[in-house]
Amino acid sequence: MKIAIFNEDILGVVKGDRVTDVSKAAGWDSAQPNESFLKLIEQFDELKAAIEKEAETGPSYALSEVTLKSPVPSTRKIWAAPVNYRKHQEEMNKMFNNAPRTIEEIALFLKSPESLSGPNDPILLPYKDRRTDHEAELGYVVGKKAKNVKKGDAKDYIFGYFALLDISIRGNEERTWRKSFDTFTPIGPWIVTADEIDDPNNLPMTLWVNDEVRQDGSTKHLIYDCYKCFEVACDNMTLMPGDVIATGTPEGVGPIQAGDRVRIKIDQIGEFTVDVKLAEEA
Amino acid sequence: MKIAIFNEDILGVVKGDRVTDVSKAAGWDSAQPNESFLKLIEQFDELKAAIEKEAETGPSYALSEVTLKSPVPSTRKIWAAPVNYRKHQEEMNKMFNNAPRTIEEIALFLKSPESLSGPNDPILLPYKDRRTDHEAELGYVVGKKAKNVKKGDAKDYIFGYFALLDISIRGNEERTWRKSFDTFTPIGPWIVTADEIDDPNNLPMTLWVNDEVRQDGSTKHLIYDCYKCFEVACDNMTLMPGDVIATGTPEGVGPIQAGDRVRIKIDQIGEFTVDVKLAEEA
Repeated sequence: MKIAIFNEDILGVVKGDRVTDVSKAAGWDSAQPNESFLKLIEQFDELKAAIEKEAETGPSYALSEVTLKSPVPSTRKIWAAPVNYRKHQEEMNKMFNNAPRTIEEIALFLKSPESLSGPNDPILLPYKDRRTDHEAELGYVVGKKAKNVKKGDAKDYIFGYFALLDISIRGNEERTWRKSFDTFTPIGPWIVTADEIDDPNNLPMTLWVNDEVRQDGSTKHLIYDCYKCFEVACDNMTLMPGDVIATGTPEGVGPIQAGDRVRIKIDQIGEFTVDVKLAEEA
Repeated sequence: MKIAIFNEDILGVVKGDRVTDVSKAAGWDSAQPNESFLKLIEQFDELKAAIEKEAETGPSYALSEVTLKSPVPSTRKIWAAPVNYRKHQEEMNKMFNNAPRTIEEIALFLKSPESLSGPNDPILLPYKDRRTDHEAELGYVVGKKAKNVKKGDAKDYIFGYFALLDISIRGNEERTWRKSFDTFTPIGPWIVTADEIDDPNNLPMTLWVNDEVRQDGSTKHLIYDCYKCFEVACDNMTLMPGDVIATGTPEGVGPIQAGDRVRIKIDQIGEFTVDVKLAEEA
């Protein structure tokens, strides 16, 4: 199932080029999207049949006529994987002359929950004079509270997948700061529930800046795959329902600037395009 | 006012060695401490007189007979200051042979909101074989949503102050991971509202491990003072009510191990003592 949030925080199910309002079947309250979302993922197994039924009969709209919001309305935390593709490790070390560092050495890092934004929200660059890069990633949302869950069991805890941009300022600060500005984690265009993804560790993805392909990779090259990322993110730490995991970016990262349009597409998931603006002009 | 949460998430005001239940005056719902807390800090100016009155007449208990919980029941994020005292910068660089790094270079880092714990909760060491250190800090809780607020105005956005332990595993991972384990941010013993602190940037603090003084500093030596930390934490990033800021630790950090008792005391605030245990034995 493709679960979207659109217009005034309405819950929708996407099929083809249309989205159907399923708020009624899900007991969704558009005035409280975060609470409604947590209830939805907690009770999804029980609600699923009714939602599927309403997706056939409810009021529907052309996707081209609605505004999609972030499919996770709010999150407590975003755990993200650094240098999680070999060729991206190599390009980073070459580009910035860093001492070679690996994900095994760095582990994961946190992004601010306030960096989360939607597939129609612009990326706002806080500083004109700092290089700011695109990073195309597969992201997912945690469905159940978890601690010390091993990778072999992680699948049962993942609610669904989406495309994610891990926008990053370059520099000497730690990743957690360089990647936490408001609008630095656009996700979308919707959540594809885990049962509809054949293998999250084998999904081709592409990122364009304007019309130029910049990143062309696949999650089959992940060093820590989706499930290993989960294991590390809950190793003696608690993951909560609604938490977001960003699995890392393949090679090809590069700078973006005001006026650019960044497009990300992941097989079996979908695509979205966001504008880049200067924060001071937004 | 000293605001505590005790026993079954009851709201209290502390005076001397007693705590008075002021839940009624504050419209506090112990079944929803997080929602109640956010309402309390949002409406504090209006509720204050009624709370002060109930603090004189409400049911009161000896502090020695209650269990204090984390005075912030839950938080969205914890922004923390690295190497924010000159002598601590020096000891870190000496101890770990690091390239000298400064807070100006690193900026702030995030700790997981799930690392928050209370003044009676043990610190749980996730790994027996990794050095894990105490760091005594002044912490505070944000009272109002803020973005791009400058240090000169920060005072108006701070609800209150407390003692905070920034527990840290040493190693090559980024701070955000080494400091985010569950129980790695004990705070307490209560919140002292900002109006009762003469100058948060001039507060002596001491930390003991068992009976040995390990850290003996003062916030007067902060490089980024409390207000500058606030400015940096909301520079193009949104701070939310209930967010926690950890201002950094003075020199004297060192390892803790299972069986230790860690005591922190800050002038005008108070003190608490927590036990150290192994996570696997908890």
